[in-house]
Amino acid sequence: MAERETPIGEASRSPVPQENGLSAPPRFSFSAQPTLEDIRRLQAQFTDERDWNQYHQPRNLLLAMVGEVGEVAELFQWKGEVAEGLPDWPEHERKQLAQELSDVLIYLVELAEKCHVDLPRAVLEKMDINRQKYPASKVHGSAKKYTEYQD
Amino acid sequence: MAERETPIGEASRSPVPQENGLSAPPRFSFSAQPTLEDIRRLQAQFTDERDWNQYHQPRNLLLAMVGEVGEVAELFQWKGEVAEGLPDWPEHERKQLAQELSDVLIYLVELAEKCHVDLPRAVLEKMDINRQKYPASKVHGSAKKYTEYQD
Amino acid sequence: MAERETPIGEASRSPVPQENGLSAPPRFSFSAQPTLEDIRRLQAQFTDERDWNQYHQPRNLLLAMVGEVGEVAELFQWKGEVAEGLPDWPEHERKQLAQELSDVLIYLVELAEKCHVDLPRAVLEKMDINRQKYPASKVHGSAKKYTEYQD
Amino acid sequence: MAERETPIGEASRSPVPQENGLSAPPRFSFSAQPTLEDIRRLQAQFTDERDWNQYHQPRNLLLAMVGEVGEVAELFQWKGEVAEGLPDWPEHERKQLAQELSDVLIYLVELAEKCHVDLPRAVLEKMDINRQKYPASKVHGSAKKYTEYQD
Repeated sequence: MAERETPIGEASRSPVPQENGLSAPPRFSFSAQPTLEDIRRLQAQFTDERDWNQYHQPRNLLLAMVGEVGEVAELFQWKGEVAEGLPDWPEHERKQLAQELSDVLIYLVELAEKCHVDLPRAVLEKMDINRQKYPASKVHGSAKKYTEYQD
Repeated sequence: MAERETPIGEASRSPVPQENGLSAPPRFSFSAQPTLEDIRRLQAQFTDERDWNQYHQPRNLLLAMVGEVGEVAELFQWKGEVAEGLPDWPEHERKQLAQELSDVLIYLVELAEKCHVDLPRAVLEKMDINRQKYPASKVHGSAKKYTEYQD
Repeated sequence: MAERETPIGEASRSPVPQENGLSAPPRFSFSAQPTLEDIRRLQAQFTDERDWNQYHQPRNLLLAMVGEVGEVAELFQWKGEVAEGLPDWPEHERKQLAQELSDVLIYLVELAEKCHVDLPRAVLEKMDINRQKYPASKVHGSAKKYTEYQD
Repeated sequence: MAERETPIGEASRSPVPQENGLSAPPRFSFSAQPTLEDIRRLQAQFTDERDWNQYHQPRNLLLAMVGEVGEVAELFQWKGEVAEGLPDWPEHERKQLAQELSDVLIYLVELAEKCHVDLPRAVLEKMDINRQKYPASKVHGSAKKYTEYQD
């Protein structure tokens, strides 16, 4: 996988065309791989090889995910507001964050698998629901408070 | 996207070859798409079109993810132990679970984006760390308690 | 405070009278002190003495509480179902649990204080709401599923 | 209980003496009752009367608490930084917060009971540990970052 030469946090940034014809600063994006199915398969291998399926029932995985979300929260807890891109974070904290977010994703993927939820497809369906629930034409620039639409 | 015809929860199951030459029951797997980068891009569009980036700072997204994890927990809270595949769950609860897990993933992806963490790549790196931390040869079949390796 | 001589986990158990005149096994109960207000005052002192109020804004405290809930979850994550009284837990895990539950309470109390929520009073009001929402006469022994009343 | 006449959020504020002899603005404090043991006993009654102990095993209660923490997070998720006392929150949101914080406490208390953790005593012990871990003389006014002491 050739992309692995790029260090974490320096994924591709492609210029974004703007109305005035100039390019906006390139927007952060993810590597194309691994896919969610790749991650599911790799984690299933990892669990199989260690004979750990006996411990990876849905509620155990859910509590493990809650534990990892807690570790993400610990990284943000005393910081007050944090700007996009974490400009003031030292490298070791950014690395730790990358690891804790990864742990959340790994357990989320395995939880979905063990619940037989096709997570990539389910996300597409949920996004359809969200688009209908919050129509851009109605929500954009409205004087109504954002939170009213969220509920 | 052709796969969308398959309903949620009936993703492909391919037969698994076993040592004795027979096939194991097919193992649950995910659809190949959307990838994490597809989800990031679709969610970025969704947020842009609604002019909601002003609300989607890292800590806001983290709290939103905590809220969605709470909704997943609510689906499991009074059930006691739950078996793989959720055999006793009625269809509407499985659908709700698919939606709540999707919400967790959507906010996780957007949180990673806004923190400039290349989530797919970060997961590969974390999996390498996990493989070294829990070598299969040492952990498999060991009499030592599983949890000791987890710490 | 005289009760401090009793070790954690051995709080008073008073015999419970039963319909047949025999005593049920004594039920676990808490020490009478400290009260929630005692805990609030002690924690406020702790924070004042360290000049830490500058870090203890509501959202910081909330994320700290999420972190501590995550640590409680980690203690339960690979255990499968756990019986009342944690009969199979070794002493060091029971101690760790007592500490993590305490951390959740400490941050919950300080979060309530900083939000100017009178937590003891609010609990009484919420319990009134719960009693009306789930009347014992309607819920007890009903064939309807427990979860239907929970929603 | 006479204090119940005071509405939520207007608990007693006693003037705080200052070095210069003037009084600081009164500090927010909690009602003296109910105690944690009162809450434990009231909730045990509530659960007994509904024959719900069969559902209130430790892990179920833990997941219920995670669900309630999620509901607290939802109240804070789109707000950005929030000041002490929640000056900009409308009354209905303050009420909702009081209810969600109460739910967290109710499940935390019942979880501790079912785990036979004497929560009030455990908090005192944890506070002793915290005082030793972060000595005020060393931490106060130090140039070292707060978070270094937290880890």
